[in-house]
Amino acid sequence: MALRRRSARALVYLCRGFESFQGLGLHGPKSTLQLRGLAALAQEAFEEAPQNSKDGKVLHPDLINDDMRRTVYAVRGELMKRGEELRKAGRDIIFTNIGNPQALGQKPLSFNRQVQALLNAPFLLENQKIVAELPEDVVARAKQIMTKLPGGVGAYQDSRGSPFIRQEIADFLQERDGYPANPEHIFITDGASPAVRMCLTALIRDSRDAILVPIPQYPLYSASIQLQGGSLLGYNLNEEQGWSMNVEDLRARLQEGRDNGMAVRALVFINPGNPTGQCLSYQNLKDLIQFAGEEKLVLLADEVYQTNIYQDERPFISAKRVLNDIGGQMAKDLELVSFHTVSKGVIGECGLRGGYMELLNIHPGTIEEMYKIASINLSPNTMGQVALSLMVNEPKPGDASYEKHMEEKGTGLASLRRRAHIMTDGFNSLEGVSCNFTEGAMYSFPRIRLPLKALEAAQEAGKPADTFYCLALLEATGISTVPGSGFGQEEGTYHIRTTILPPEESIKEVIARLTKFHEDFMSKYR
Amino acid sequence: MALRRRSARALVYLCRGFESFQGLGLHGPKSTLQLRGLAALAQEAFEEAPQNSKDGKVLHPDLINDDMRRTVYAVRGELMKRGEELRKAGRDIIFTNIGNPQALGQKPLSFNRQVQALLNAPFLLENQKIVAELPEDVVARAKQIMTKLPGGVGAYQDSRGSPFIRQEIADFLQERDGYPANPEHIFITDGASPAVRMCLTALIRDSRDAILVPIPQYPLYSASIQLQGGSLLGYNLNEEQGWSMNVEDLRARLQEGRDNGMAVRALVFINPGNPTGQCLSYQNLKDLIQFAGEEKLVLLADEVYQTNIYQDERPFISAKRVLNDIGGQMAKDLELVSFHTVSKGVIGECGLRGGYMELLNIHPGTIEEMYKIASINLSPNTMGQVALSLMVNEPKPGDASYEKHMEEKGTGLASLRRRAHIMTDGFNSLEGVSCNFTEGAMYSFPRIRLPLKALEAAQEAGKPADTFYCLALLEATGISTVPGSGFGQEEGTYHIRTTILPPEESIKEVIARLTKFHEDFMSKYR
Repeated sequence: MALRRRSARALVYLCRGFESFQGLGLHGPKSTLQLRGLAALAQEAFEEAPQNSKDGKVLHPDLINDDMRRTVYAVRGELMKRGEELRKAGRDIIFTNIGNPQALGQKPLSFNRQVQALLNAPFLLENQKIVAELPEDVVARAKQIMTKLPGGVGAYQDSRGSPFIRQEIADFLQERDGYPANPEHIFITDGASPAVRMCLTALIRDSRDAILVPIPQYPLYSASIQLQGGSLLGYNLNEEQGWSMNVEDLRARLQEGRDNGMAVRALVFINPGNPTGQCLSYQNLKDLIQFAGEEKLVLLADEVYQTNIYQDERPFISAKRVLNDIGGQMAKDLELVSFHTVSKGVIGECGLRGGYMELLNIHPGTIEEMYKIASINLSPNTMGQVALSLMVNEPKPGDASYEKHMEEKGTGLASLRRRAHIMTDGFNSLEGVSCNFTEGAMYSFPRIRLPLKALEAAQEAGKPADTFYCLALLEATGISTVPGSGFGQEEGTYHIRTTILPPEESIKEVIARLTKFHEDFMSKYR
Repeated sequence: MALRRRSARALVYLCRGFESFQGLGLHGPKSTLQLRGLAALAQEAFEEAPQNSKDGKVLHPDLINDDMRRTVYAVRGELMKRGEELRKAGRDIIFTNIGNPQALGQKPLSFNRQVQALLNAPFLLENQKIVAELPEDVVARAKQIMTKLPGGVGAYQDSRGSPFIRQEIADFLQERDGYPANPEHIFITDGASPAVRMCLTALIRDSRDAILVPIPQYPLYSASIQLQGGSLLGYNLNEEQGWSMNVEDLRARLQEGRDNGMAVRALVFINPGNPTGQCLSYQNLKDLIQFAGEEKLVLLADEVYQTNIYQDERPFISAKRVLNDIGGQMAKDLELVSFHTVSKGVIGECGLRGGYMELLNIHPGTIEEMYKIASINLSPNTMGQVALSLMVNEPKPGDASYEKHMEEKGTGLASLRRRAHIMTDGFNSLEGVSCNFTEGAMYSFPRIRLPLKALEAAQEAGKPADTFYCLALLEATGISTVPGSGFGQEEGTYHIRTTILPPEESIKEVIARLTKFHEDFMSKYR
């Protein structure tokens, strides 16, 4: 069969070749008709159906979608699995591998949760004894949202999310940036990830479509690009310069992609950075935007950590604000999508899955197509939508909950800031380890210089050296991290990612365990 | 440029052809090396990057992903948009186009919502005045779930959903079917739709992979198959025989697909039917399963309406139960995926987006791949997970909430049953309209025989005849429906889909408006 298929393929190519030359008025064989007949036969043999089952299974792992099989996703990979095994076996595991603050004890904001409770059980509002126990503004806010969500939280809403909540988001954006926002250009999704995937689905047509992605990156990008069958062009962040972006490196990678016949469609950046924690300066953002504008790239701005800022030199500035500051034709042309979520910040409502994207200068026909695709899934979940509403429209001065709300937020942020220092200081005190300060986001991403003997031991174990280190750390201390290879790193360098989320009362213990482990590890492999 | 590309393509074909023949040990030209050099040059010319922007836009609707552009999704199409316009202009619109019960006044179940309220604000449990107002079993259940969800509803859970809730689902399935269920083979998703899409993503490799789908069908299937770049093979349900399935027709369509070089991968069926409302008999299910087993098709069982049953002759029977009743090798081999949700039934929690799939006899390697893909999105939303928990694990006899809960469910189901009769009787009383009884699910799908003049008027308006009818109905009465063409229907027949969800106090008014409109329409075009 294989021989038959290969000879059939050869025939098809030959015939098409001769025919094409004839069509161009160039020379060809005399017997074109005969060749055509042969070609038809060959075509038929060639177009056998793809293999449909193996070992009795249609959904055999060898026969599923190629792009799905090839997709790699490391954040919940080998380390996570081993951690789960140890946890089930009774070990005390500290999961610092995922930015999941409430799982490590971060308290949800009281005002938000009180409103959410009432929206789940609006009939409680008829019980005066319950109403009497809740702040006035909680009751008022719940009633207001209820009138704006037809059918309440149990009903499908618009596939882009409630128009009322999209308007609240637009108002928040206008206040944040000083530039107008259009609720019709905002899509609410189940967390920010589906919004990112929607954009990549629209952008990627085949493997010649490429997306520029930072190295290291959050693997949502690499995984989604692979799943969609596109190509990733990695550009390096400069670790020595605090993980800053270098437009010259970007330009070189873009040119490389183009030289390889790729259509480079978009540029992803993450600010504050994940896993790298850096906050981009105004000038860095400006350079980046000008580069995207000149080179005609869609800019995908991952700004989900915008309220996780732990220094005062570089507050968060949105790409949208910088673009509008630049103004002129570029502000009218550059296609910019920015992503935000309720999962991060002091709100940290990961489980509710509320996110959105704002589409700026995107063709209205494409927004229509995105609306159509969003409709297939009917509606983003309503509690995630409500969480967004509460995030962008907080208690105001004078409201009953205002002071408590602000105090909860302030306390939470101050604590994260202290922990960012403790983690990076801890890493920097270790032999052969250097760690840029976690200026924002939720992660430390130290570089670890491993001794030669450790590299050899890793090779013997058949594991990347950073995975080898992280597994040893997990076994010895119960601290679950993610190896740098899951995010991408410069060849020959090794990193690990930890969150800065362990609670303050235990974070020093985490550092102590880590220090002890690292010393033992270095002694063993020195 | 076009000439250059065409001649390059011809060269590439020629060279590949000659090379292939040489590889087979057959004759070839002398100058193979020369040809190879030419081919390399040609290849380069041939492999120009795809067009990257148009009218200044990268995300131009002409340049987005082909499959995305080609995808059609009618449930939220032209009719929905016009309905929204009219509603904004102040018209009273009755949305019977989407199965969204709470949007039309269906009350959520009290027990479920009380538990959900406490899970949102667990600190309310510390307030004795509030606790005193809630039934004991509500408080106990909220506390139990809280201990089982690490970090509470604000934390990411396992990417397949909470292990505790997956165990509850497995217990529910075992009790429902009398056969064991494995929580490791259950994936919780944001509503059932993402689970369906996950399966189609795994199944479809390219356009030669085909899925058998009923006509009429719920357009989630046609849309997702197109979005994934696969082929849909429609098999007709038999309207004259109460929308039953005919295995002979299935076999013919399967053969047709195979004759066209397709790998037919899976068979979708919807029971109870959407939009058709039929409930499959035990024998019908058995035939279907045996057919899928013999022909090696993955069976995708859309069983989301399993509790929406309005007759006693054919209660819901799961495909899994029938397969296990058949037993033998087939029960060990047949790859079966079944889908369920909190959006339907008397619970009707559409907005919370809780769904799951159970994977039966699916290769463990493929389940691993699905877990990997689920991980990219981190976690299904927790409130949807909680809603699933409450659906599959209800108050038991003796619990404080038991009687009220059962009464709410019974009342809701009895009302739906009455409305199923009122809707189908109403349609059947109209001239030229016939409607199979809505045995289950939430929809009536009457066939409407339109007069020739109406068909001509539709053609003149450039619209399918059923869309023309539905638009006229909307303009005249405010009733928003979906034309049959959105679901597929036999050539030359016209249908509309309405839900049976308008509240009882207004459903007679709906029928009266519909009757008046239909009479006027028929008179106008007679």
